[in-house]
Amino acid sequence: MDQHALQVWSSAHLAQVEQALERWVGGDAPAGLGQAMRYAVLDGGKRLRPLLVMAAREAIAAGDGDAQPAPGRQEPALRTGFDEAALRAACAVELIHAYSLVHDDMPCMDNDVLRRGKPTVHVQFGQAQALLAGDALQALAFELLTPEDAGVPAAVQARLCRLLAHAAGSSGMAGGQAIDLASVGVALDEARLREMHRLKTGALLQSSVMMGAACGEASVAAWAGLSAYGAALGLAFQVVDDILDVTQDSATLGKTAGKDAAQDKPTYVSLLGLDRAQAQARDLLDQAHAALGQTALPDTRALAALADMVVSRSH
Amino acid sequence: MDQHALQVWSSAHLAQVEQALERWVGGDAPAGLGQAMRYAVLDGGKRLRPLLVMAAREAIAAGDGDAQPAPGRQEPALRTGFDEAALRAACAVELIHAYSLVHDDMPCMDNDVLRRGKPTVHVQFGQAQALLAGDALQALAFELLTPEDAGVPAAVQARLCRLLAHAAGSSGMAGGQAIDLASVGVALDEARLREMHRLKTGALLQSSVMMGAACGEASVAAWAGLSAYGAALGLAFQVVDDILDVTQDSATLGKTAGKDAAQDKPTYVSLLGLDRAQAQARDLLDQAHAALGQTALPDTRALAALADMVVSRSH
Repeated sequence: MDQHALQVWSSAHLAQVEQALERWVGGDAPAGLGQAMRYAVLDGGKRLRPLLVMAAREAIAAGDGDAQPAPGRQEPALRTGFDEAALRAACAVELIHAYSLVHDDMPCMDNDVLRRGKPTVHVQFGQAQALLAGDALQALAFELLTPEDAGVPAAVQARLCRLLAHAAGSSGMAGGQAIDLASVGVALDEARLREMHRLKTGALLQSSVMMGAACGEASVAAWAGLSAYGAALGLAFQVVDDILDVTQDSATLGKTAGKDAAQDKPTYVSLLGLDRAQAQARDLLDQAHAALGQTALPDTRALAALADMVVSRSH
Repeated sequence: MDQHALQVWSSAHLAQVEQALERWVGGDAPAGLGQAMRYAVLDGGKRLRPLLVMAAREAIAAGDGDAQPAPGRQEPALRTGFDEAALRAACAVELIHAYSLVHDDMPCMDNDVLRRGKPTVHVQFGQAQALLAGDALQALAFELLTPEDAGVPAAVQARLCRLLAHAAGSSGMAGGQAIDLASVGVALDEARLREMHRLKTGALLQSSVMMGAACGEASVAAWAGLSAYGAALGLAFQVVDDILDVTQDSATLGKTAGKDAAQDKPTYVSLLGLDRAQAQARDLLDQAHAALGQTALPDTRALAALADMVVSRSH
């Protein structure tokens, strides 16, 4: 799948995700909270995490459907339940990502005023509302994963909550952010920089892939291969982020460029230099492709194209 | 059960909860995050919400065990799974409560420096770490509810996540806090004040009761009665909180007294006067007791005593 085909594939899936977010986020929240939640989530972002959920779900479903349908295996009702679960997982992981940006932009953290080309949430709605909107978005993620009567099997609901909670919390994203906080002005070696990013950005990207895989019946090989794919992609994403922070301007990025250096934060570029950082990004892309080969799934083209996109993106 | 018997009952249950929190909170979180999480949760608080979970779970289990054990009904393994679920639910709801206090105390919200007789988390660890610790505690709550191999049935895991996420989010606690933010200096009538507190404090207290009930097989009558009990108790808690804010000093409360009036926040006392607020608390206590009578459960003594305690407490 080339980048044009990926765009066609993405558009179809994102339409579903955007509609669902529109329907599910903040509609009945009182006292301006809903507006802040919707501002943080709707109309913006590459939606990489939802796309990873959808692509992984499709890869698993294709693996399952390719064989002759065996009796008792993924009946139509169950398939529908899995589709519903994948859509909810796609939205939930995006809500966690969105809340982390809202909190991360606040004055006590990165103190950033621009995000996706718009004023950040606390600039628009005040810090107190931004804090609450982030908190409410995190809760909403778990609410979306546990619908009472949407046909999603309870075991899938529990597994999705488990994956997302682990990736979002102190062993994942929040833990990585704490390391980040403690690393300003500190010389990290490459192993510690990698560990920080594995938690801060990688965990949620990897869990997006695993959540997609959890919306179906993944074999052991598929699960392991997708996990390795998610880990490589997660790290590649961050290496490229560090590269873009020095090679692009704020208008292209839709957020403040050059802020890592300004804040004296360790990055792959500051540690390895631009050339070696770019070589590392290509190396991780190779690893991601190789991992897909290990899954024994018949169609991982969307996942492969998403990895290409992550490494070749300009913002 | 009188207040002395309640204390004996509570001590036994809290020992379990404190041990579990000690084990589960922040142990492997990096870069000081774990310390901030543990500071926020351990060694403090009345633990009312965990006690409500445990008491509701016991009431349901007694209702179930009272009949002759029918074949296939709550086998020993399932009972153990329900006990594990109740302990996890008790801890999870306390984590949500603790995170809300951490964020609520921050300078952009209530800007409070004293909590449970100690400096608040942001005073002790800085605002950025406090923000992250709160975020990580919320994620941990859902992680505790979805253990992979602790014998908790997936349907119970999903139901517990659903109840907690709904109570914590924009239709519950976070929504109530948004109304609270928007109400400073505004004259609320009693209906709107009640709605604010139903969300801000009531939803999580009520969900504590319902989460306990979800760790077992509650009849329709038991579910409805416990829901009404939780609603009455939740509101009573807030009315009494408003009363204590004007009748007690900071040392007794372990937090800053008189701050509602200082911040020009509407309260039951400012709206109704002290006498009518006290009458309302007694009235809500009667409603809570009456609701327990509707459950048709054989032993709701701990729940009844907890309601008495909520209304008669001095801090």
